[in-house]
Amino acid sequence: MNRLYLYDTTLRDGSQAEGISLSVDDKLRIASKLDDLGIPFIEGGWPGANPKDDAFFARLGELQLRHSEVVAFCSTRRSGMSAKADLGLQKVLEANTRWITTFGKSWDLHVHESLRTSLEENLAMIADTIHFFREAGRRVIFDCEHFFDGYHKNPEYALATVQTAAEAGAEWVVLCDTNGGMLPHQIQAVVETVQKFCKEKALTCGLGIHTHNDSETAVANALAAVMQGVLMIHGTVNGYGERCGNANLCALIPNLQLKMGFELLSSEQLANLTATSHFVSEVANLAPNEHAAYVGLSAFAHKGGIHVSAVRRNPQTYEHIVPESVGNSRRIVISEQAGASNILQKLADFGLYFERTDPRLQEILVRLKQLESQGYQFEAADASFELLVRESLGERKLYFSLEGLYTSCQTFPDQSVRSEATVRVRVGDKLQHTAAEGNGPVSALDSALRKALTDFYPQVAHMHLADYKVRILDGTTGTSALTRVLIEFSNGLKRWTTIGVSPNIIEASTRAIVDGLEYGLMSSGMHPTEKCLREILHQN
Amino acid sequence: MNRLYLYDTTLRDGSQAEGISLSVDDKLRIASKLDDLGIPFIEGGWPGANPKDDAFFARLGELQLRHSEVVAFCSTRRSGMSAKADLGLQKVLEANTRWITTFGKSWDLHVHESLRTSLEENLAMIADTIHFFREAGRRVIFDCEHFFDGYHKNPEYALATVQTAAEAGAEWVVLCDTNGGMLPHQIQAVVETVQKFCKEKALTCGLGIHTHNDSETAVANALAAVMQGVLMIHGTVNGYGERCGNANLCALIPNLQLKMGFELLSSEQLANLTATSHFVSEVANLAPNEHAAYVGLSAFAHKGGIHVSAVRRNPQTYEHIVPESVGNSRRIVISEQAGASNILQKLADFGLYFERTDPRLQEILVRLKQLESQGYQFEAADASFELLVRESLGERKLYFSLEGLYTSCQTFPDQSVRSEATVRVRVGDKLQHTAAEGNGPVSALDSALRKALTDFYPQVAHMHLADYKVRILDGTTGTSALTRVLIEFSNGLKRWTTIGVSPNIIEASTRAIVDGLEYGLMSSGMHPTEKCLREILHQN
Repeated sequence: MNRLYLYDTTLRDGSQAEGISLSVDDKLRIASKLDDLGIPFIEGGWPGANPKDDAFFARLGELQLRHSEVVAFCSTRRSGMSAKADLGLQKVLEANTRWITTFGKSWDLHVHESLRTSLEENLAMIADTIHFFREAGRRVIFDCEHFFDGYHKNPEYALATVQTAAEAGAEWVVLCDTNGGMLPHQIQAVVETVQKFCKEKALTCGLGIHTHNDSETAVANALAAVMQGVLMIHGTVNGYGERCGNANLCALIPNLQLKMGFELLSSEQLANLTATSHFVSEVANLAPNEHAAYVGLSAFAHKGGIHVSAVRRNPQTYEHIVPESVGNSRRIVISEQAGASNILQKLADFGLYFERTDPRLQEILVRLKQLESQGYQFEAADASFELLVRESLGERKLYFSLEGLYTSCQTFPDQSVRSEATVRVRVGDKLQHTAAEGNGPVSALDSALRKALTDFYPQVAHMHLADYKVRILDGTTGTSALTRVLIEFSNGLKRWTTIGVSPNIIEASTRAIVDGLEYGLMSSGMHPTEKCLREILHQN
Repeated sequence: MNRLYLYDTTLRDGSQAEGISLSVDDKLRIASKLDDLGIPFIEGGWPGANPKDDAFFARLGELQLRHSEVVAFCSTRRSGMSAKADLGLQKVLEANTRWITTFGKSWDLHVHESLRTSLEENLAMIADTIHFFREAGRRVIFDCEHFFDGYHKNPEYALATVQTAAEAGAEWVVLCDTNGGMLPHQIQAVVETVQKFCKEKALTCGLGIHTHNDSETAVANALAAVMQGVLMIHGTVNGYGERCGNANLCALIPNLQLKMGFELLSSEQLANLTATSHFVSEVANLAPNEHAAYVGLSAFAHKGGIHVSAVRRNPQTYEHIVPESVGNSRRIVISEQAGASNILQKLADFGLYFERTDPRLQEILVRLKQLESQGYQFEAADASFELLVRESLGERKLYFSLEGLYTSCQTFPDQSVRSEATVRVRVGDKLQHTAAEGNGPVSALDSALRKALTDFYPQVAHMHLADYKVRILDGTTGTSALTRVLIEFSNGLKRWTTIGVSPNIIEASTRAIVDGLEYGLMSSGMHPTEKCLREILHQN
């Protein structure tokens, strides 16, 4: 069986989705997760198109990618100039990627209506651009934009773009259903013809497929192409993308690997699929789709007694795959066993190795379920999770305790706003009572807390809030529902994320801040009591 | 071309979805909408299974259905008794429907593991049940539960259940992928064999298909069956259903009608598809999926200037169907790349028609860019955008002005937290000074503001915050950076979204709340000054 290549475009096509706006840090974090997952190609963005994409490529070196190639994306050269003269293409070279994906029009209508140029010039734009990148020593993927619509209207021209790209040196030619309107049987028929054409013309490029979900068949369309021998599959995590989204890798990967027998990821990587899906939705600040195939919270949820007992006797009766194979778990109200493998995996990440039968594992699971039922979700909050684990193990160190807080926010006649906070914090024997101002109540709280701690733990001066995200857990009752706050901290060397949940946004934020400062102290190797005692002795 | 029959199971299978709980009234309202849409079969529920389903069938006469048959659903008779002796089946007859769908096992594993009976007895249960209903003068549809899994393990037995049902008098035999694990090519191959089998055995039943979305291919699986000549298609509105849901009729119908040439609905009915989808999600109290194919808010959304001007010149360039054919519409998204074409289109949505050369258009663009550079993003905040436009045109009405606010949040020794807010609001000549508590400072603010306004604008009592999202705009400086708040409001009939940006989360939230209440008042057609004046005169 031929090797299939996954090509992720979450950072480029995915970030076109309405409601998604990724910072450079977000993009780097997602790239790193995709690398862990084992995706061979990651489309990173369009160098030169905006400062964010430039910064992303400039900072790529910070990541130590082991499995993935990050690919730069761009259009073919502009009409009526040479590739060399097009400064946009220079910018792409400067991103210094080994692979470049360039896209061009395969639909005559678009050549006329969007590019407003001739059919010949469009072919020349494709050939010149690919030659230009090849001569600079780069490997090239060519995206045939609007290929299927183009093929239906003018098959000869659509095929001419494939031939032009392949002959100019593109190693992959990707057939794109840009408008997302195709159905699987249409994809299948067209791909079959393209395969024949490539054989006839002795083109050596591999074929790829890029589908959108406007007919709710993006995943099936990609599979139909694979059934016809296509070997590169484009998609995004959670199917994020413009309009109705792109083909969803979180469904495609298990369909291909578990049902069609392709080896794409190691079984350990595949078991990270659910966590990766949730991580990306957290970073994008979108509620995860609970009904998502394979990775959704409800994907393996069982209701009803007969159902549940049948599934317990023989899971095959009501489950199409083993949930753990994609890192999900069966969800039956009373099942405490669900999720044990995830936890074991997670603990191993902290350097804690347990037997599956260790009673402490059960304790952690019970505590975790309890918190999850209160709206906590630890996929994107590793620091809070580690604190929870250490607490269950009796290993959590008490650096300080927050005994009370007061925050206020007030407007003044000159239209200014002022926020301040006071906190009462116990460190060892000493009660600190401090106040601080901030841009808002949360930053005032953070300042007041750090002011209270800095005498004891000078490290807190280096910690700061790097990101702050809020989501309401039940969208039907608005601000009266539970508020979940995720806070990312940084000390300049390391980043960590904590979570707080409460009906009150201030309380939720406070919990996440307290966890964040505590985790920062713990991971800097500080021992609390001695230091506290020493400081206290010193001060008195 | 043979006629296809749509079969909706939103009220039965759809209501199994986690998070959905429909009252009898809800079910009746949905049935009535499905009738308007022109769905031939509506599966109403299982008479005798619960009081809600009984009440639904008892009250069916209240509806004057013109296009739909409401079908009762039930399992085959119990093992080891006659059909007549099974009181459950009597209950089903009492629902008095012309059509009854009964389901039985087609997978030998389930016969053994779930029913715990013999393969022969299961066939007898199928035959007896169908005979029983036929003798009572009812028309019968038979659902082959787990047909595809069953066929893969024991094809002879799975086919025997089809033959038994057809020979007992079922007019339709529906092949169900109950666990949702099949892929389109597998469905296609199995259905082909079943068709051959039916021909060989001279079975006269029609074949149906019932798919689930556990592989994210439910729609494509149903289409694959149709490609093989299946004539009845089961699905639910919005794909609601257990686990990952059922095949989504809102995608299936336009795929079949607009792309495969089947005549299912009149064009007027098809143009009600988007409204029906939104209606069902409102009744189910679930946020509509904005990225849904055909009916989602984003399904025909366009960003970016070149894109927008191309779609205006020729919509076919970027749209796979005419949005209005399914009752949706093109939506020009306002984003950083906004050019004049986007704005013009957007203004037209508000009923404001401008020439491209109108100087007011320039003013709006300038103001928009200014706000965007301050972190505003209007793509998800249509209501704030409309207010901005009306302000630029000098058409914004002043319903009230917030002159001051104070919020506080405090913890108490018993670990409780309390938030309260006071606001000073001017309405016309009158200064209202109110205070309220809330779960957090934002909900306290919202309550205090609405308390201040309710004497003047009783409509505010119906408005509530439906969702609240916060994002820090510059991820590197945390809570000291800009905070962007998006708030979704609802008045039970309509939803609208506003935005607020400020370094202070309370100020940002306040701006979004003020916009939201103002927009709610404006869109309810209220005139501010007169009403204010009248109230003020009345009160003094």
